[in-house]
Amino acid sequence: GQRRLQGDEVVHDLLVTLEEVMQGCTKHVKITRSRLNPDGRSLRSEEKVLNVVVKKGWKAGTKITFPREGDETPNNTPADISFILRDQEHQQYKREGSNIVFTAQITLKEALCGCTVNVPTLDSRMMPLPCSDVIKPGAVRRLRGEGLPLPKSPSQRGDLVVEFQVIFPDRIPPQSREIIKHSLAQC
Amino acid sequence: GQRRLQGDEVVHDLLVTLEEVMQGCTKHVKITRSRLNPDGRSLRSEEKVLNVVVKKGWKAGTKITFPREGDETPNNTPADISFILRDQEHQQYKREGSNIVFTAQITLKEALCGCTVNVPTLDSRMMPLPCSDVIKPGAVRRLRGEGLPLPKSPSQRGDLVVEFQVIFPDRIPPQSREIIKHSLAQC
Repeated sequence: GQRRLQGDEVVHDLLVTLEEVMQGCTKHVKITRSRLNPDGRSLRSEEKVLNVVVKKGWKAGTKITFPREGDETPNNTPADISFILRDQEHQQYKREGSNIVFTAQITLKEALCGCTVNVPTLDSRMMPLPCSDVIKPGAVRRLRGEGLPLPKSPSQRGDLVVEFQVIFPDRIPPQSREIIKHSLAQC
Repeated sequence: GQRRLQGDEVVHDLLVTLEEVMQGCTKHVKITRSRLNPDGRSLRSEEKVLNVVVKKGWKAGTKITFPREGDETPNNTPADISFILRDQEHQQYKREGSNIVFTAQITLKEALCGCTVNVPTLDSRMMPLPCSDVIKPGAVRRLRGEGLPLPKSPSQRGDLVVEFQVIFPDRIPPQSREIIKHSLAQC
């Protein structure tokens, strides 16, 4: 028989949560594809579950290919199916490579007078982060090793970066304002 | 004679300052180009000054073309020369379309207790901007009509956007800290 060409690769996005990237996971993806019947001409529709293994720390854009698991036609051998990892938005963190960034909102009083911020970790602990110095808006502190596993060396981990956002009061009563003015004049 | 093809367009960047965009200007650009001698075979090098008219408010990316002012060869009619406007970095402003953005650095004391910021305008005036309310980091105020002319209607102008950056003290002495803590507790 004549050699059949292969159909075009089918590419799907595969959303993963940071928790899944943290632990590694296997995603079971059900696909529907056409397969050639034994008569070599008619097609049937077939369901199959592909087990997509996502290893610890893998980054968005990583491509996982299943050769020849796609549609088959009388003229084409089955196409490849590929999945491209995409990070699902997280409620608490932004991902930056192997680091995760947590925005800690603190009040102006806390920023100036000290506070302890409770930072949630990826494994659901609360890490107390004592802040005694003045915290400037946009300042960062790093909790080393509390980020995502490094894809090429998953026993090591990136950082949890805490980025401070300082919430100002909407207004300050005139009396307090005078006192603050006087106190800050010495800084 | 056979019809000659035209050589490839020559494209140059043309840097303009915000002041030049504000007023409109004519830039005199000296170019060197090759021209065909009357013998139709030998070439001479020739200098010419092109007067590039930049109208009020024109944006980066605007292209101004001088047809057939480029190199000529025995086989090609002179190429076109084009200039593409690029904004030169300004010491005080960032350009955003027809608006200009000025970053005003104020101290924490000024942000909390009020101040008057002197905002430099494009025509070298100082506009006093009184701030009596609390100014939050990243807050903006607009001086309407103090930006660049609108390219399609140059009698109108965009805004001068004042963006506040609040400079925190590096440290606050413990005594002042207690007073501030008490005062801010009521906000």
